[in-house]
Amino acid sequence: MKRKVFQLLVDNTSGVLSRISGLFSRRGYNIESITAGETKTPHITRITIVATGDDDALAQIEKQVAKLEDVRDVKELKPDVSVYRELALVKVRANASQRAEIKTLGDIYRANIVDVSDNGMIIEVSGSQAKIDALLRLLDGYEILELARTGIAGLRRGTDDIVYL
Amino acid sequence: MKRKVFQLLVDNTSGVLSRISGLFSRRGYNIESITAGETKTPHITRITIVATGDDDALAQIEKQVAKLEDVRDVKELKPDVSVYRELALVKVRANASQRAEIKTLGDIYRANIVDVSDNGMIIEVSGSQAKIDALLRLLDGYEILELARTGIAGLRRGTDDIVYL
Repeated sequence: MKRKVFQLLVDNTSGVLSRISGLFSRRGYNIESITAGETKTPHITRITIVATGDDDALAQIEKQVAKLEDVRDVKELKPDVSVYRELALVKVRANASQRAEIKTLGDIYRANIVDVSDNGMIIEVSGSQAKIDALLRLLDGYEILELARTGIAGLRRGTDDIVYL
Repeated sequence: MKRKVFQLLVDNTSGVLSRISGLFSRRGYNIESITAGETKTPHITRITIVATGDDDALAQIEKQVAKLEDVRDVKELKPDVSVYRELALVKVRANASQRAEIKTLGDIYRANIVDVSDNGMIIEVSGSQAKIDALLRLLDGYEILELARTGIAGLRRGTDDIVYL
């Protein structure tokens, strides 16, 4: 099983996310994460998909996705020439004396405390998945009550191969 | 038109994203963003959806989503009691003399420079959508070459109303 990251530029039509994720699931491919957001061009959305499967299957799905009417461009974002980043919000149980400990951990990871209540805190952290996973392992020593992760967004490094849409 | 943020806890089955986004699009509701990630519980995924529509339509879609087999819980994340955060990667055209200017802008927004090439830079910024939009407006003075946004992840403030899944 391989893990690949794809970047799609698509028309922002109602249902485009559903058509793309449906194509993956009907063919039995697993989407690990999908993020989508506007680009600098009106009506064009950039989607980053992390999918797992064998090499043949992933090459196949890339071709199928490229054929969809809404899809303007699809390419793989290879790890050695790309930047991937994710954001996570982590709600941790914390009493007054634990707050300072958790704040210290957060500072090391350049995380922000975005909410504090009587018995909990919400921490915002962003970076590579490895960095987020490392902080989560440390916070697991306390009690993680809720976790919201965005999934990764990615861009190719440098200024070659830009699709001007 | 209203804009609402929903939080879903779902079984991480193949096709769950497609079923949920399909339900929105078939009924003509617009999904502005959808993010998904693992929770602390194996096989349970947390999804944050931002949708626009009129009040009746949004109340209706919440009920429909709750009926899906994979969906364990759905609730609205109201702005006054919730935290929303997003991450963006921004590739900007920059020559040697512009790099320092862009670095200064980034520092003000606590953004990170994650890639530098001969004629461009990639900036990672996270925070509220308003913060990201503000930095994008400033960077627009240079040339934004590529933009990848995750869409928002959200959590309810405090430690009440936690669904222990």
